[in-house]
Amino acid sequence: MAEPLPRSILQLIGELARLPTIGPKTAQRLAFFLLRAPETQAQGLGNAFATLHEGITTCERCRNFADENPCSICNDTTRDEASLCVVEEPLDLVAIENSGGFHGRYHILHGAISPLDGIGPDDLTINLLIERVAHEQLSEVIVATNATIEGDATAMEIRQRLADRKVRVSRLARGLATGGDLEYVDAATIAQALEGRRDL
Amino acid sequence: MAEPLPRSILQLIGELARLPTIGPKTAQRLAFFLLRAPETQAQGLGNAFATLHEGITTCERCRNFADENPCSICNDTTRDEASLCVVEEPLDLVAIENSGGFHGRYHILHGAISPLDGIGPDDLTINLLIERVAHEQLSEVIVATNATIEGDATAMEIRQRLADRKVRVSRLARGLATGGDLEYVDAATIAQALEGRRDL
Repeated sequence: MAEPLPRSILQLIGELARLPTIGPKTAQRLAFFLLRAPETQAQGLGNAFATLHEGITTCERCRNFADENPCSICNDTTRDEASLCVVEEPLDLVAIENSGGFHGRYHILHGAISPLDGIGPDDLTINLLIERVAHEQLSEVIVATNATIEGDATAMEIRQRLADRKVRVSRLARGLATGGDLEYVDAATIAQALEGRRDL
Repeated sequence: MAEPLPRSILQLIGELARLPTIGPKTAQRLAFFLLRAPETQAQGLGNAFATLHEGITTCERCRNFADENPCSICNDTTRDEASLCVVEEPLDLVAIENSGGFHGRYHILHGAISPLDGIGPDDLTINLLIERVAHEQLSEVIVATNATIEGDATAMEIRQRLADRKVRVSRLARGLATGGDLEYVDAATIAQALEGRRDL
């Protein structure tokens, strides 16, 4: 049977369907959307994909993806030199930056400890973190890993490795999300919100 | 504040977030997935997007997107010359081809009548369809528009326009989907399955 769709459409659908979160149906819809949109949109995307890796380096201090090394955050002298926030992924850094609640520097682990996935402490940038704590004048390391089993295991590992250093090691608070309705909050979160309760 | 992410990542996220079904969070995840995948995958995508429109033409008979004009289906002499299946979109043609239940030719409307969206009969390829019915030796036109208000309106318009032609105009059956559990089927579908019931 002859293919009912042109080769270039099938090729784009095939490439898109290999991406996470995009199934074959979404890939088809995206391809036809672009076919009907001005050709410049498909070309803009083509260019953005093709040049994604161009000029991207890894900051040797915080290990974030960056345009320059050290990155603009590590180079920013207006930031608090004494606070370091440890996150799993670059997008976690973006979320914390957007919150406006932190003005120090970061350290990107590029993952979390997960024995089931074969990811141990040495697959992350924990050794580099320990080295930074030894050489930088830090008063506090805020461990902002995810509130998951893997994030907790990673936080524990970091706490143990830093136990003999004169630096405060803290963790993000657990509790109700702002705007959350108690009725719909899961039991584990409520238990942690109770445990971490504060005087009014 | 300095941007916390490199320019090329932000650019890809921006382009992706303009696509339907992809929100900013998915765009971010896709960008970081590709950043960690081999560079060839991002380049393959870049190439597929950039060349999407290349060599794509519209078949002057069925109005499908195609590599050649007439397209491979219109050119296929082993197909039934007397049956024409009318669909809204190219992906509907693909779905019908995959069902293996039809061996004639197609006509693509490129949409459906939708007054709310300002789409009338003249925005579709209905005039071309009427012309094809006048010149081709057809015994049946199967209207395979969607089972929606817009699809129904389009089918009605086509039936009226072909009322004075000596050609059978049919519509896809409505009823239970194969594998469907009656308990979860909506009321309108059950009503139509009852109305279209067949003797056992």
